[in-house]
Amino acid sequence: MKKFINDPDAVVDEMVEAFVQVHSRYVRKLNGVRTLVKKDAPIKGKVGLVSGGGSGHKPAFVGYIGEGLLDAVAVGEIFTSPPPNACLEAAKAVDGGKGVLFLLGNYAGDVMNFEMAAILAKAQGIEVARSISTDDVASAPKGEEEKRRGVVGSILCWKVAGAKAEMGGSLAECKAVADRLNGNTRTIGVALAPCTVPAKGTPTFTLADDEMEYGVGHHGEAGVEKAKLVPVDQVVQRMVNEIVADLPFSSGDKVLLMINGLGGTPPTEQYLAYRRAREVAEAAGLKVEISLVGEFFTGLEMAGFSVTLSRLDDELEQLILAKADACMFKMI
Amino acid sequence: MKKFINDPDAVVDEMVEAFVQVHSRYVRKLNGVRTLVKKDAPIKGKVGLVSGGGSGHKPAFVGYIGEGLLDAVAVGEIFTSPPPNACLEAAKAVDGGKGVLFLLGNYAGDVMNFEMAAILAKAQGIEVARSISTDDVASAPKGEEEKRRGVVGSILCWKVAGAKAEMGGSLAECKAVADRLNGNTRTIGVALAPCTVPAKGTPTFTLADDEMEYGVGHHGEAGVEKAKLVPVDQVVQRMVNEIVADLPFSSGDKVLLMINGLGGTPPTEQYLAYRRAREVAEAAGLKVEISLVGEFFTGLEMAGFSVTLSRLDDELEQLILAKADACMFKMI
Repeated sequence: MKKFINDPDAVVDEMVEAFVQVHSRYVRKLNGVRTLVKKDAPIKGKVGLVSGGGSGHKPAFVGYIGEGLLDAVAVGEIFTSPPPNACLEAAKAVDGGKGVLFLLGNYAGDVMNFEMAAILAKAQGIEVARSISTDDVASAPKGEEEKRRGVVGSILCWKVAGAKAEMGGSLAECKAVADRLNGNTRTIGVALAPCTVPAKGTPTFTLADDEMEYGVGHHGEAGVEKAKLVPVDQVVQRMVNEIVADLPFSSGDKVLLMINGLGGTPPTEQYLAYRRAREVAEAAGLKVEISLVGEFFTGLEMAGFSVTLSRLDDELEQLILAKADACMFKMI
Repeated sequence: MKKFINDPDAVVDEMVEAFVQVHSRYVRKLNGVRTLVKKDAPIKGKVGLVSGGGSGHKPAFVGYIGEGLLDAVAVGEIFTSPPPNACLEAAKAVDGGKGVLFLLGNYAGDVMNFEMAAILAKAQGIEVARSISTDDVASAPKGEEEKRRGVVGSILCWKVAGAKAEMGGSLAECKAVADRLNGNTRTIGVALAPCTVPAKGTPTFTLADDEMEYGVGHHGEAGVEKAKLVPVDQVVQRMVNEIVADLPFSSGDKVLLMINGLGGTPPTEQYLAYRRAREVAEAAGLKVEISLVGEFFTGLEMAGFSVTLSRLDDELEQLILAKADACMFKMI
């Protein structure tokens, strides 16, 4: 394992210490728990938005704390769920009297620990709702969407709920736009090389020199198959066709197209993926209204990318494009 | 070579095609040359800022086209200088009557081709000046600063000159702040793994499993030495001490501290590097006023990072923090 770290077991604590220094204009850390909170939280009369999960996904989760996005994040060890008390303290710290929305990927540990936090928060008089993202097409078959993992589509849920909250939306309204965004969103990922969790020290998967992992998750979960590596145009054509068939998207739909680098794949390759994804989406009659290319939700240094399509209506489009100013994500 | 590409020789053209689609709100491509220009250029009465160089460094160079930063970029093949006519057309496209500033790294091909462009532009009545960044401490000894490479410090030169231009600064004033910023700025880089240029197909260097390249350039240029990999705190302590001794920085100086990921090193490791760099800088009496951590100037998928310190005065600090809205870099 070749990494720029000190003690493998201290990585997350050291990272959090530095993160708060760098982004002191945006965040503060709660005492006694590994929970980062928006500097000015709670905001009276605004729904509080909380997410959380394992570390190693930056800019997710902590990079999205800020105006128009998340109010707090419970920080777990790398690829490991945060404990219930970190989630509970997040809720308590951001409740401005209008309730708190838990925005989660669909991982058993996260869902369980936030569920415990929700029970405890409600017992303390805090109204709590949750929205769970499930955009990863490769992780469960059509018809079983509720079993799918939430991957980079999660950040779009945070974005629309965050904008809705800034506009004064109620807890139910914030949850409703996140749920609607999630229902409209599909992602597939592919990888060329794994990542290594410092505390474990071994790669998350192995591949031959001519292979790619098709349908990979952002922790390096095995995908649909180990497929032969072909030119990126062919890879992306298959990905987009499967996404379009899954929703299904219909000719004439307005969509957001997002290419997400998983960590070790340079922007140049991400733009090549975008180019073909747009061609295939347009050939299916889709109108690409919003384009996002970059690293939005990574898995350490894993080499790979994902393609996401999200069907837009006028409100969702407006909420995606609304101003946001978070630690590591800005929409002007 | 495992990459998500099509024809290795078509990578840059396909990237540019996608880049313009994704960032159509910010940029357009000139006809006949591989030059990207700010959508609304030329801006009458504003100095035009032009940079350029090889591809493979995103977000540099093209990601910095936008308000408060660059007006045009001449785009070369990966790690290869753009031709003179691409540089000339950039100058012509952004001259708003107040002259054009060429902002260059100190690479022979870039300097030569932009020099030819300057001669041709001047012959057409365009006033041209240039500022060359030379922040890489490892690339030439103290006393020979003018021989040093410009690395990620370049983007700080663009930032201050860009802000000065937005405020109505003259060509001489924009050049002066970029030159002053460069004179105050020092960077050292370190790498754990090389990158591979698609058209070449072989890694830029080799390292043993327990080695790092100390003093690496952002194309994978050999550094000061192949050193044993030690915990990041020790790596960074050496880097910062060498930087502080080089300028020299003095106790009480206000500084900007930047950690730049070179491509394949995850944000978590970058934040660990920041943590120690700040400790060592503060121990030397420096006051960290501005912190930047992220990928600002990469070398494809090279695993590594650099540390930059830049001594601030009130004007430079104000110019760094001024609003910017470019394709891949925003300062709010």
